[in-house]
Amino acid sequence: MNIKPPAEPGMAFSDIDTPSLVVDLDAFERNLEIMAARVTEAGVRLRPHAKTHKSPWVALQQIARGAVGICCQKVSEAEIMVDGGVHDVLVSNQVVGAAKLDRLAALNQQAQVAVCIDHIDAVAEIAAAAANQNVIINTLVEIEVGGGRCGVAPGVAALNLARAIADDKHLHFAGLQGYHGKAQHFRGLNERRDAIAEATRLTAETVELLAQDGLACEIIGGAGTGTFEFEAASGVYNELQAGSYAFMDADYARNRDADIFEHALFVCAAVMSRPNQQTAVVDAGHKAASIDSGLPVPWGLAGSEMSGMSDEHGVIDITTVNEKPARGDKILLIPGHCDPTVNLHDWYVGVRGLHGADACVETVWPVAARGALF
Amino acid sequence: MNIKPPAEPGMAFSDIDTPSLVVDLDAFERNLEIMAARVTEAGVRLRPHAKTHKSPWVALQQIARGAVGICCQKVSEAEIMVDGGVHDVLVSNQVVGAAKLDRLAALNQQAQVAVCIDHIDAVAEIAAAAANQNVIINTLVEIEVGGGRCGVAPGVAALNLARAIADDKHLHFAGLQGYHGKAQHFRGLNERRDAIAEATRLTAETVELLAQDGLACEIIGGAGTGTFEFEAASGVYNELQAGSYAFMDADYARNRDADIFEHALFVCAAVMSRPNQQTAVVDAGHKAASIDSGLPVPWGLAGSEMSGMSDEHGVIDITTVNEKPARGDKILLIPGHCDPTVNLHDWYVGVRGLHGADACVETVWPVAARGALF
Repeated sequence: MNIKPPAEPGMAFSDIDTPSLVVDLDAFERNLEIMAARVTEAGVRLRPHAKTHKSPWVALQQIARGAVGICCQKVSEAEIMVDGGVHDVLVSNQVVGAAKLDRLAALNQQAQVAVCIDHIDAVAEIAAAAANQNVIINTLVEIEVGGGRCGVAPGVAALNLARAIADDKHLHFAGLQGYHGKAQHFRGLNERRDAIAEATRLTAETVELLAQDGLACEIIGGAGTGTFEFEAASGVYNELQAGSYAFMDADYARNRDADIFEHALFVCAAVMSRPNQQTAVVDAGHKAASIDSGLPVPWGLAGSEMSGMSDEHGVIDITTVNEKPARGDKILLIPGHCDPTVNLHDWYVGVRGLHGADACVETVWPVAARGALF
Repeated sequence: MNIKPPAEPGMAFSDIDTPSLVVDLDAFERNLEIMAARVTEAGVRLRPHAKTHKSPWVALQQIARGAVGICCQKVSEAEIMVDGGVHDVLVSNQVVGAAKLDRLAALNQQAQVAVCIDHIDAVAEIAAAAANQNVIINTLVEIEVGGGRCGVAPGVAALNLARAIADDKHLHFAGLQGYHGKAQHFRGLNERRDAIAEATRLTAETVELLAQDGLACEIIGGAGTGTFEFEAASGVYNELQAGSYAFMDADYARNRDADIFEHALFVCAAVMSRPNQQTAVVDAGHKAASIDSGLPVPWGLAGSEMSGMSDEHGVIDITTVNEKPARGDKILLIPGHCDPTVNLHDWYVGVRGLHGADACVETVWPVAARGALF
């Protein structure tokens, strides 16, 4: 049994079923335009991360505005993107295991699908898959620039991997991946700037070391919505991988005051209970909105605050709210973190004029790569 | 594009794709047997909550062992359960909106699907849907017994709702819902006992008040895996709604030391990077395991601890682990909270002899109601 869409094109906002994932199409399009302009001004390329939206429909809109391709985190995500018409994908992640690598190689028969490594054994593993499928796989070295996750040390260790890639006839050395994930969420502007300055320094040194060995980096990739201005201005990074800018979320909004991006993604919930004057309970809980970066924030309900969530309930404190919502009223929630929230839903509901009186569903499209974990 | 199963029956454990949801079938079956025995001893009925497993396959196993039916939280969940062969469902939740209520009423043409209310307006709303579909809907009054979420006040307010239900020819008054969700997760046994003693007192007073008005409660429902022994022994509650006992999770394990239930549910992850001696990075992050009740706990990896998660990465501190896992090794993670973790996956992989050398996939079945939010 598949999950049916919670709305149809032409429907009034009030008729959208809840809880559902609603996109403010106007804000979304402005976000895409602004980022496109920023990267053009900076003279760098944009390869937005599709782990945020998991949708070829969104990816193609980004590409139509100048993005060179997209990033994915999983081979199964890449498969769905290629199936949806995307021709240039970077799996900005390690891929381990012969079965996954064989799928990655097979996908390279249809599109250009690059991958990252951070271990010498990966060279032979990926090369075997490439040989098996008779393709050449673009391979990047992921360096650890402060994120504390994957990645080989910058410098000589990275050079050794790059050289091994370049020396393998089934692989093509395509550059460096230097993403600082943690820095995206540092609250202070200076903290973010300093972190990316250090990441840039490590990356630049490695680029230089590789150049001395005759290895050119076509892609020097990294950056997210929290720091992209710094990588854009670094003179080192040439491909930015931000994803959340398209939608924005409550966590990024806490970083980026007076931000250039607008909230374009909401969980549309309905009040299912008003047990007392202080409380509105909505029908969206952990299964409709992720809380790994904090609780969702109610939109346009001044004085309200989410006080808790359980699996299928969200509890909103409305003690100081003047016009208190009633049973059945819809409340838009800004997700704490857009990526894992999107992944909970099967459908996007695209609304034109969302915050106006004539809000109308313009389009409904699938979260095509939802659950693409493999 | 649908998500393909990560394994096939007959496959060795080592060939299961990652990250995936693995069930230890032996432990799972023992959990079901133990709960069935406990409720029989206590002389109460079991109506396990299907919001945990979202699977008619699991529900039918529970029913085969004596459960009278199941609970759901959403109409769409109930639809999938009825479609899968379950004939008796209680939506242990408020349902708001004519469209949802119409679906609830329509479902009553195929099965018995009861619902809860906590507001007087709901009586007419549900009755209208019942009339429209020419069915009689079993309706319970949800009372607030300490959970701080939905529910009308016990006592007179509950009586007024019950009377209104009983007086409507399209509805049948079926009893009380008195679930104390918060108490499930209180760490101390005495705290849990005291909370359920108070919930029981409030429920008993309400039952008595209704009886004086000639209203009998066929169902007096509540309880979860954290407290069910207390409701079972209360002499008041007659239907227990525990769900997590089938799988168990790390959060409940922190409550219930020397527990009667075993961990039967795991996220099976693979090591994708070993950036240093202290760290193993696995391919399971927020999109594979919920962290609303804490990070997952690695199974059988003495000294290890998960130190962080991001969307698609889990970072495990292996500083003090003697036999350190290598790239490609599988690690089983006990989810922090089973319900929202299950909802992230499309498939269960049922393994026989999971922790032994001959672990083998016996069956693969869908998380049929994953994403059933409506």
